[in-house]
Amino acid sequence: MEKQEMLYEGKAKQIYKTAAEDEVVVYFKDDATAFDGEKQGSILNKGIMNNKISNFFFKYLEERGIKTHFLREINHRETLVKKVEIIPIEVVMRNIAAGSLSRRLGLEEGSRLPEPVLEFYYKDDELGDPLINESHIKVLGLASQAQLQTLGEEAARINELLQEFLQQRGIDLVDFKLEFGLTAGQEIVLADEISPDTCRFWDSETGEKLDKDRFRRDLGGVEAAYQEMLHRITGKEEL
Amino acid sequence: MEKQEMLYEGKAKQIYKTAAEDEVVVYFKDDATAFDGEKQGSILNKGIMNNKISNFFFKYLEERGIKTHFLREINHRETLVKKVEIIPIEVVMRNIAAGSLSRRLGLEEGSRLPEPVLEFYYKDDELGDPLINESHIKVLGLASQAQLQTLGEEAARINELLQEFLQQRGIDLVDFKLEFGLTAGQEIVLADEISPDTCRFWDSETGEKLDKDRFRRDLGGVEAAYQEMLHRITGKEEL
Repeated sequence: MEKQEMLYEGKAKQIYKTAAEDEVVVYFKDDATAFDGEKQGSILNKGIMNNKISNFFFKYLEERGIKTHFLREINHRETLVKKVEIIPIEVVMRNIAAGSLSRRLGLEEGSRLPEPVLEFYYKDDELGDPLINESHIKVLGLASQAQLQTLGEEAARINELLQEFLQQRGIDLVDFKLEFGLTAGQEIVLADEISPDTCRFWDSETGEKLDKDRFRRDLGGVEAAYQEMLHRITGKEEL
Repeated sequence: MEKQEMLYEGKAKQIYKTAAEDEVVVYFKDDATAFDGEKQGSILNKGIMNNKISNFFFKYLEERGIKTHFLREINHRETLVKKVEIIPIEVVMRNIAAGSLSRRLGLEEGSRLPEPVLEFYYKDDELGDPLINESHIKVLGLASQAQLQTLGEEAARINELLQEFLQQRGIDLVDFKLEFGLTAGQEIVLADEISPDTCRFWDSETGEKLDKDRFRRDLGGVEAAYQEMLHRITGKEEL
């Protein structure tokens, strides 16, 4: 499937039209941003690694009953997916306190939560992707009550499936962000990506961070961390 | 009921022990603070006006089936209330976008919401009283699911009752903050206060602000606004 004109460019990905009305190509860039775009940079080969990591997870989830936008990997940086209208809600699940949750609730980073925490953020760059609640979602008309329940249930199930997989590879799934989309038939499917850009992965033994926090917090070894995650997840040594 | 030693001092009120184990005296101060205590000042006779306004609302709500901590007004600045353990959740109801909601959701201040918005904030000065959701409340153990539902239902009913009353006095109830407490018998009752310190009141005709935003935003005429609210609510001209 050849990609045609670009439909959309985000911080880490581009979306291209194809000959098929209901299919688009996702192209993964190496660009990295943090803190609502205030910090900008590039991570060598991130696009390739995230494409492969994300596709691995989407296939894994599809096989276990989660509906996703994934169709097939085209090449190192490009994947064919179902065209969806993204629901402008970032769905976050957390198992261990870190980042903004630690700051918001005064919880020490690294403390395990008694149960997974579900959060919704309004996907709006100008507003800085603020935390929102169900009442906000209702008045903004971002999703119906039934859709919102589906998002929460899918996120909880995905959390279970990812944790099960990652535990066996010596990785703690600290937290992650999901985006969902509506297909032409109004079906809710998992979209966007699941990668070290959108998850916090900590080595279960050493606690070493293997995700974008290495970039955000200037910890060094950013590329090596993404490479390590690719290896742990797919078993492949090289790109 | 004579007040004994002070049990607690907040930004706008003091709480005193009494001879009765299950009753305390609330003393309303003139102190005014805003922006998590960054702005400090004083509003002449605010304590007297808020005591009277709040007691008027609490009696009005009690007569309409809302359980509150109110027992009786002792004098201009002091009221006898049931001793409660405050649930550390600020319950906010909004009918018109203003303040932090406008900023969070990018809604123009003054735009009427299609339905009331319910928000929960974590009552914690050090954390700056952050917005929290039901999942946060669960992991922090701030309230049970049943208690949380009660808070939401009581707030919605109080919103209806207050709006009904205020409309007749030419006041738009923009938004307000409630706090609830648990009695010794674990009953949830409305506590704290309902006053221009904790509500946004706008004149229905002119849009003039008759609440603490005059202090927060240096609009002048602060005492006159509180006095006007006291008059509109209780019908009394003077303190």
